[in-house]
Amino acid sequence: MDGTQVTGIHQLYARQSHLIDSGNAGGWADTFTPDGEFHSPTYPAPVVGRTPLRDFARDFARDARAGGEVRRHVVTNVYVESLDAEEARVSAYLQVMATRVAGGTRVLRLTALHDRLVRHGDDWRVARRDVRRDDTA
Amino acid sequence: MDGTQVTGIHQLYARQSHLIDSGNAGGWADTFTPDGEFHSPTYPAPVVGRTPLRDFARDFARDARAGGEVRRHVVTNVYVESLDAEEARVSAYLQVMATRVAGGTRVLRLTALHDRLVRHGDDWRVARRDVRRDDTA
Amino acid sequence: MDGTQVTGIHQLYARQSHLIDSGNAGGWADTFTPDGEFHSPTYPAPVVGRTPLRDFARDFARDARAGGEVRRHVVTNVYVESLDAEEARVSAYLQVMATRVAGGTRVLRLTALHDRLVRHGDDWRVARRDVRRDDTA
Repeated sequence: MDGTQVTGIHQLYARQSHLIDSGNAGGWADTFTPDGEFHSPTYPAPVVGRTPLRDFARDFARDARAGGEVRRHVVTNVYVESLDAEEARVSAYLQVMATRVAGGTRVLRLTALHDRLVRHGDDWRVARRDVRRDDTA
Repeated sequence: MDGTQVTGIHQLYARQSHLIDSGNAGGWADTFTPDGEFHSPTYPAPVVGRTPLRDFARDFARDARAGGEVRRHVVTNVYVESLDAEEARVSAYLQVMATRVAGGTRVLRLTALHDRLVRHGDDWRVARRDVRRDDTA
Repeated sequence: MDGTQVTGIHQLYARQSHLIDSGNAGGWADTFTPDGEFHSPTYPAPVVGRTPLRDFARDFARDARAGGEVRRHVVTNVYVESLDAEEARVSAYLQVMATRVAGGTRVLRLTALHDRLVRHGDDWRVARRDVRRDDTA
């Protein structure tokens, strides 16, 4: 597997967290394809397409602020399962961490990501993300 | 140090966790050499060879299920200390995380891995893993 | 972005944690440029230059031992924002974890690193590190 390709995928995952956690909702949405899909048991329905994804990221930031917390998407164990000229399959772990001002840090939830990426020039975008939560049976 | 080689090693560590945590005990055991060794203060004796390693991974999954928990091996700080045509030395951090269904997530233990890898075609396998626990003196 | 260059930066971050956490204060200080700067709200003033950085790392280790704790710098989400022949900008997340002997593990604090790296031969060094804490407003 080509090292530079895998490194580009690592960059995508690192960047996505910095974008959503810093409140750059549009930047986060742009890491998905125009018809990109986000499926997660945390939310009632899939989120599909750039504008809904941007609104979703904006709500995430608003909820964190309303809760008096800083939240971080800590991504680890990024594993590129398959990779060809156009597409990649990736699994990763995601710890959502929450910190209160002048307070402690806790693991809000531990999840796994299962993504289909498609190539976009020299970069990659998420075509479909499936999140699984460890605290749901 | 060759980027593609280092990337291949990152892939190995990410993949190992996905294998053992998803219950693929045989797949996890196959990431070791046939005479691969696993040394950890968490367990009474070293585990050596594919069949004992597979049984060890199976027991890990069984214990987690029996405890009503999902457990994840969160690997970070993968550092390739040395690398040549046949062998690599790697250190990494490992957080074993445990999540209860409908409950919270906690750090079960924090450990460090010190591994000797040997090349296997385009891939790498663990010849010897030494785990150190932070909660033992 | 060149994969081998990005991989070298990942190596730097992994290595820094292993150095400071294992008590190799001089080795950690040497990952900074001779006039490297460390800015963090955890400490009263910036730490600038190799000798002060080494003393800083030594104090970190001493405080952990005095507190009966093992501390680990768990670095994730290493994102190379920009990279040219001489310099790189990098953001990352840092969880400082603390484990008591025969006790549990907790997240001591969650922070973000914003670094300017400069090239040093085939390697990279930190010219300036800005740490932001999630628990300060």
